[in-house]
Amino acid sequence: MSQGWWQQPSRMPDQAAREQALARQAQLTKPAGSLGQLEHLAVQLAALQGRERPGVERVAIGIFAGDHGVVAEGVSAYPQAVTGQMLGNFVAGGAAISVLARQLGASLEVVDLGTAQPLELPGVRHLHLGAGTANFTQGPAMSAAQARLALQGGRDALLRAQQGGAQLFIGGEMGIGNTTAATALACWLLDCPAAALVGPGTGLDGAGLARKTAVIEVALALHRPAIAEPFDALQRLGGFEILALVGAYLACAQEGVTALVDGFICSVAALAAVRLNPDCRPWLLFAHQGAEPGHRRVLQALEAEPLLQLGLRLGEGSGAALAVPLLRLACQLHSEMATFAEAAVAERAP
Amino acid sequence: MSQGWWQQPSRMPDQAAREQALARQAQLTKPAGSLGQLEHLAVQLAALQGRERPGVERVAIGIFAGDHGVVAEGVSAYPQAVTGQMLGNFVAGGAAISVLARQLGASLEVVDLGTAQPLELPGVRHLHLGAGTANFTQGPAMSAAQARLALQGGRDALLRAQQGGAQLFIGGEMGIGNTTAATALACWLLDCPAAALVGPGTGLDGAGLARKTAVIEVALALHRPAIAEPFDALQRLGGFEILALVGAYLACAQEGVTALVDGFICSVAALAAVRLNPDCRPWLLFAHQGAEPGHRRVLQALEAEPLLQLGLRLGEGSGAALAVPLLRLACQLHSEMATFAEAAVAERAP
Repeated sequence: MSQGWWQQPSRMPDQAAREQALARQAQLTKPAGSLGQLEHLAVQLAALQGRERPGVERVAIGIFAGDHGVVAEGVSAYPQAVTGQMLGNFVAGGAAISVLARQLGASLEVVDLGTAQPLELPGVRHLHLGAGTANFTQGPAMSAAQARLALQGGRDALLRAQQGGAQLFIGGEMGIGNTTAATALACWLLDCPAAALVGPGTGLDGAGLARKTAVIEVALALHRPAIAEPFDALQRLGGFEILALVGAYLACAQEGVTALVDGFICSVAALAAVRLNPDCRPWLLFAHQGAEPGHRRVLQALEAEPLLQLGLRLGEGSGAALAVPLLRLACQLHSEMATFAEAAVAERAP
Repeated sequence: MSQGWWQQPSRMPDQAAREQALARQAQLTKPAGSLGQLEHLAVQLAALQGRERPGVERVAIGIFAGDHGVVAEGVSAYPQAVTGQMLGNFVAGGAAISVLARQLGASLEVVDLGTAQPLELPGVRHLHLGAGTANFTQGPAMSAAQARLALQGGRDALLRAQQGGAQLFIGGEMGIGNTTAATALACWLLDCPAAALVGPGTGLDGAGLARKTAVIEVALALHRPAIAEPFDALQRLGGFEILALVGAYLACAQEGVTALVDGFICSVAALAAVRLNPDCRPWLLFAHQGAEPGHRRVLQALEAEPLLQLGLRLGEGSGAALAVPLLRLACQLHSEMATFAEAAVAERAP
C-alpha cells in the first residue's frame, strides 16, 4: 500500500467546545432549531475551532490548475489554451473567483501544477509537474512520482494559508477537461458506470456527452485491473489539480483548518481524501450542490448537506466563496444573539 | 369591489436595461449560464433598477408585528406575551434579525401594528390598530377600516425606506400564532383544504397540528361564503402584520423598489399582493424555501425560485437577510468580471 504523509492522523474536533456551543444555541432568543442548517454550522465550527464562539473572518482561497491529456478525445467544449489564459485572468482580477475573493476579503493564491503549454505568469506559482497529464485512455494520467508531487502541492498551499492565519480554506480548480477526469475517478470510488455520473461539464451537447461517457468507460476498462487502492485511482484517472485538492483537504484535517468544499470536482477530491484517510471527514464542509448529475451521488457517499443549490457549474471555488457569508453570519448569529434571560423573553410553554 | 391605493399601476421593469445586462453576461469570462441563478438575478435587478450594472448596497428591513386572537384556540407553542417581548429584543439588538441587519449594514425599523397588551417601547413605531386581531373562528379577524390601516402601515414603512434611499426592501414579521392566520389565508388563496398546508410553525407536536388544522377549517367554513375578493380574505383571515407586508410589497412595485420576500408568512402575503394587483409580481424576489409544508405550494403558485433552502423557520425577515450577500455578490460579479476580450480568453469552440 502506498505510504505517505496523508496517512498521518487528523486532528480531533473538540467535543467540549461542541457541547458549549450546543448549550449556547439552546439559550438564544429563537425557537430551538429555527435557524436550521446555520445552527449545525455554528456548532460544527465551534468543535473544529475549539471555542464556544467560532468565527471565519480569515479565508484563504487556493486555485489549482492543470491540463488533461484526455482532452485529445474531444471531451470539452473549450480549447485547452483556456486553462492558461484563465490563470492570467485569476491574478489580473477579472475572473469570478477574483471578484469574490476581493469582496470577501479573502486571500487568493493561484497554483499552476502543469499546463499543456508551460507558462511563467507573474503572480502565479508554477510547479511544472508536466505538460498536463497524459491521455488516460492510453495509459496512466501521471506517474506515481507526479501524483506525490501533486498531493504535496496541495498540502504546501494549505500550509502557506495556515501560516497566513486562515480559519477557512477554499480549494478551487481550473482545467479544461477536468470534469472527465473527476467523473472517471468518481466512477471508481463509487463503483458505478460512467453513464450514471456523466454530465455536460461546462457545456457539452448530446453527442459530446455520449463521447465523454464512452471515453470514461474505455479508461475504466483499461485501468480497473491495475487499481488496488485510492492512490492508484488518483494516479491513473486523476489530474494534477484534482490531486492537489485531495492533498489540501487532507492537510486541512491534519493541521486543524476547516475546509469548505466547492462543486463537483472538489467533491470528488473530497471523497478521494476520505478514502485515503477517513478521519479527515469532519474537517470538510460542503458549499454547493451543483448541476452536474454525478454530484448528488458523490455528496450522498460523503453524507454531505451542501448549503447552496444555485445551479452553478463554473468551478474556480466560486460556489464555496458564495457560501462564505452564510458561514460568517451563522457565527455572528451564534455569538451576538441575546439569550432568553438577557432579553427577558419567555421560552416556550412547558 | 374594494377600492384602494393598491390598485394603482406598478412600475414597469426596464427592458432596455435587461437587454444590456444580458449582453454583458454573455461576454463575461465564464461559460454561459455557469453562474446559474446569480446570472438571472443580476439581469432581473438590472431591469428593476433601470441600469446595466445594478447594486444592492442600501437595504432596508421593516419588521411588522401583531397579535392574533386565534391564539385563544391553542395554536401556538409560545405564550402570546412573546410578541411584545421580542419587539424589545429587536430594538435592543439581540434578535437574529438585529444581528443580521447590523452585519449587512441594513436599516431596521420595527412597526407594532397591535399587540394583545398595548405597548410603548422606545425605538418601536406603534400603530395601535387594536389589541391584536379578533379570534377568526368566531368572526372576522379585523374590520375593513383596520385592514386598510394595516395595508397603509406597510406602505408607509416602504415610503420611509425609499426616502432613506433603499435599493432593496425586506419585510419581516413577528406574531405568535401568525402561521395559523397565514395558512388560513393561503387555503383561501390556493383554494385547498387546511390539511394540505398546515405545518408545525415554530414548534407544534402532532396533537397541536391536528388542533391547528381543525381551527383553520372552522374559520374557512365560517368565512368562505362572505369572501368575494382577496381584500375580504385578508380582512377576515389575516393579521395586522400580514396585511402590512401585503401593503409594503404593493408599494414596492408602485415605487420601483425591489422587495426580497422572506419565508412562509411573507410568501403568503406576497401571493395576496399579487392577487390584489398582479403587475406587482416582477418586483418580488424570493429568498428562502422554508420548512413549513405549505410554503412550497405558495411558491409554486407564485412561480418563485427561492435562493436558499436552509431549513429556517424563524421569520423576522431572517431568511431574506441571509440571502442579501448573494444578491450583492451577483451584482458585483456582473459589474466587475472581465469580458473575454478584456482578458484575452478564448470563447468556446464554434
